[in-house]
Amino acid sequence: MHIEISGTYTDLYQIAMGQALFRGGQQGKRAVFDYFFRKVPFAGGYVVFAGLETVLDALAHWRFTADEIEGLAATGFDRDYLDYLRDLRFRGDLHAPPEGEIVFPTEPLLRVEGNVIEAQLVETLILNLLNYQSLVATKASRIRAVAGGAVLSEFGLRRAQAQGGVVAARAAVIGGFDSTSNVYAAQRFGLRAEGTMAHAFIQWHGDELTAFRAFAAARPDNTVLLVDTYDTLQSGVPNAITVAREMRGRGQALRAIRLDSGDLAFFAHRARAMLDAAGFPEVKIAASNQLDEFVIRSLREQGAPIDIFGVGTSLVTGAPDAALDGVYKLAEAGDEARIKVSESLGKTTLPGRKQVHRFSNGDGQFAGIDGVVTLNEAVPARLIHPFEPHKSLTCADLASEPLLQPVMRRGQRVAAGRSVEDIRTFAAGRLALLPPEYRRFENPHTYKIGISETLHRERETLRQRYAARRSPE
Amino acid sequence: MHIEISGTYTDLYQIAMGQALFRGGQQGKRAVFDYFFRKVPFAGGYVVFAGLETVLDALAHWRFTADEIEGLAATGFDRDYLDYLRDLRFRGDLHAPPEGEIVFPTEPLLRVEGNVIEAQLVETLILNLLNYQSLVATKASRIRAVAGGAVLSEFGLRRAQAQGGVVAARAAVIGGFDSTSNVYAAQRFGLRAEGTMAHAFIQWHGDELTAFRAFAAARPDNTVLLVDTYDTLQSGVPNAITVAREMRGRGQALRAIRLDSGDLAFFAHRARAMLDAAGFPEVKIAASNQLDEFVIRSLREQGAPIDIFGVGTSLVTGAPDAALDGVYKLAEAGDEARIKVSESLGKTTLPGRKQVHRFSNGDGQFAGIDGVVTLNEAVPARLIHPFEPHKSLTCADLASEPLLQPVMRRGQRVAAGRSVEDIRTFAAGRLALLPPEYRRFENPHTYKIGISETLHRERETLRQRYAARRSPE
Repeated sequence: MHIEISGTYTDLYQIAMGQALFRGGQQGKRAVFDYFFRKVPFAGGYVVFAGLETVLDALAHWRFTADEIEGLAATGFDRDYLDYLRDLRFRGDLHAPPEGEIVFPTEPLLRVEGNVIEAQLVETLILNLLNYQSLVATKASRIRAVAGGAVLSEFGLRRAQAQGGVVAARAAVIGGFDSTSNVYAAQRFGLRAEGTMAHAFIQWHGDELTAFRAFAAARPDNTVLLVDTYDTLQSGVPNAITVAREMRGRGQALRAIRLDSGDLAFFAHRARAMLDAAGFPEVKIAASNQLDEFVIRSLREQGAPIDIFGVGTSLVTGAPDAALDGVYKLAEAGDEARIKVSESLGKTTLPGRKQVHRFSNGDGQFAGIDGVVTLNEAVPARLIHPFEPHKSLTCADLASEPLLQPVMRRGQRVAAGRSVEDIRTFAAGRLALLPPEYRRFENPHTYKIGISETLHRERETLRQRYAARRSPE
Repeated sequence: MHIEISGTYTDLYQIAMGQALFRGGQQGKRAVFDYFFRKVPFAGGYVVFAGLETVLDALAHWRFTADEIEGLAATGFDRDYLDYLRDLRFRGDLHAPPEGEIVFPTEPLLRVEGNVIEAQLVETLILNLLNYQSLVATKASRIRAVAGGAVLSEFGLRRAQAQGGVVAARAAVIGGFDSTSNVYAAQRFGLRAEGTMAHAFIQWHGDELTAFRAFAAARPDNTVLLVDTYDTLQSGVPNAITVAREMRGRGQALRAIRLDSGDLAFFAHRARAMLDAAGFPEVKIAASNQLDEFVIRSLREQGAPIDIFGVGTSLVTGAPDAALDGVYKLAEAGDEARIKVSESLGKTTLPGRKQVHRFSNGDGQFAGIDGVVTLNEAVPARLIHPFEPHKSLTCADLASEPLLQPVMRRGQRVAAGRSVEDIRTFAAGRLALLPPEYRRFENPHTYKIGISETLHRERETLRQRYAARRSPE
């Protein structure tokens, strides 16, 4: 059973609007769309921007297959439009921050410029890939933040939302995980695969020691023994120590034991003491079972000597939020700036092509201010609150860097794909520049987003023009 | 960008345990695993069992590709084991209720019998497909329950957990939805695709009436106009009425208008009155914007004249639960029954091969009792509470039917695949047999699961045997 991100990986209305645009002769006209989100998940202070490389990969290979075209023909689309779709390839231009950048609400994170039909058709796949991977990478980064030097492994495929589990593994590593249990994702994205042993293996052998010996014999380089099947301290850990001795006698080493139930802090302390007393201080302790950033923080506050955490459901589902609310909004039609109006300024979009500047302090730390400006505008010295225009703040004397950089030109990637490991390293480096008050879990500081006066005036001009249209024509 | 459910679509530990079993010469031995869940999501009273046909499809084509084998070789697996995996196909036997059955915690929903390595390797894909689709089908059925005769369309691909959005559309229809916006899923699974129009289309044209006319000209058979871009009652609805008149003049008919913001009940009432007064009582009203079963119930309680609901995020993410907690546990090794022991009886599994009987009252309604028994045991007259064995209940004089039926024999499907529409009809029929007290949202009745005395005794025997092992050997 396979899934391909092809032309039909979209909402029907995109194809329907495409036909209306095609009938109207609009297909040569250029549109500009912005991807951005409005709300930080997990009541947190930042988002790790993830999924970009998978979007570039999908767009580079994007097309309607012959079968898809026939399927559309059967639902009543016009033949000349379908001929156009059959030959359509994505030839647009994309600007974005590097994948792994730390980003905030309101600011455009991906600018898509292309003919209006192609740019509209790819909306759904872009949202689908960026919203979810950014959610999971952000969740992973929160878990990384509390895990200290522990190894973090993503274990969620069995509880993942079906095939979403594949890019979940990728996003987890971008956010700071070390490995995944998901072999498919590991092979696909060059991740480190990690695995231990299941209860079924011990049940299969009936007695624990036999099972441990069988596993150690078959996987001597990476033996992790699950010790909670019968009784962790009375049976599991003593049997693991027996096998550790046998392995040492053969010149091998037991890598770790795994705890998967009960009070993990208690059992980790006791197991550690038993392993140490038996002369195995180097044998690691792995733990799993409904972990998230709050449980892991608590375990570490209790000094639980856990070296490896396996995290599943909460990570891959992005619990408790399950979705980032990213949207894709028209910013230019032809050469004219456009906005989506709303009675609330907070839901009114920012018109035209824009740049985002990240301001930094003298020490290189992020200054707590990003500025959204019109394209090619000089970096402003003052920024206006995007929704409360009577508020402004200065960003004079701060260093700045533009976040949106070309990543695709006329459908071709500007640079070779980056490895997940590179993206992970980049994300960790950028997150380290974010002051701790924006990273804390409880009531984090709100990172300020300002817009330039020029952008503010352009939006106001458009708002007034649209206000005049609020009557039947 | 594609995803294939192949051999590596699993956790690394499955492959690692497989090597240990292979080294131990166990690969000819037969294992029996049960799939079941422990907790009903959404604090509800039932689950719609979904995903089975996709599991059968995945297993029928399941194999390790040559590239996957090479990838595993690079991570240190033994060559003779990899040769075995390369040639391995799934040749197991599966028993399950029909997809769409209404099911409850604790009872086995899928019995997998096969050689221990194959049965262990497919655990992850089975959990991945069944857990998520059952979650979404259950959520969809709750929305169907409050939507009356309204059309329900799944709109969630943009907020779905990446490629999970594809089977989400399928599961939504199984649970009672009529259609999906997801063209890929519609073509793949034979679903009805549904689409309206986006704000971007109106922004593109600048003025609303021009946009409406362009859309009506291109899609006269299925014109749905989005009326909330500028001002729903001052601009959107009047412009839609203008277009409806023009279409009528051409012998066409406007199908619907769509509301996507604001107080949906208020706007639906007002828009309905305007359409009716203008002579368009047949024009439907569609609504979307963060809907779930509670919002739709409230809208209907307010008498909101909404004919079509588009539901996205909450449906496809299964909010607020995001995952069904289904597990896959060893029940037999060779010819010996096995259990997973736990200090809590509620987490101790049920040994051996089993059947599940659904009891019904004289009127054909489900009786509120399912019985789990050992295979080939006669239908018992009395059942024991699975976790509190001092409690029992009678099921004498009730009609019963066995839920677990063969669906795959030696890796071959027993019957042709069922269409999603057939499964949807079956699920609706079965749900209609579930008394309303199990279907209500607030504190639903708990459907009782009992086990036979024979099964209880077998579990006790194994528990005592394992208790003797709770010491180091």
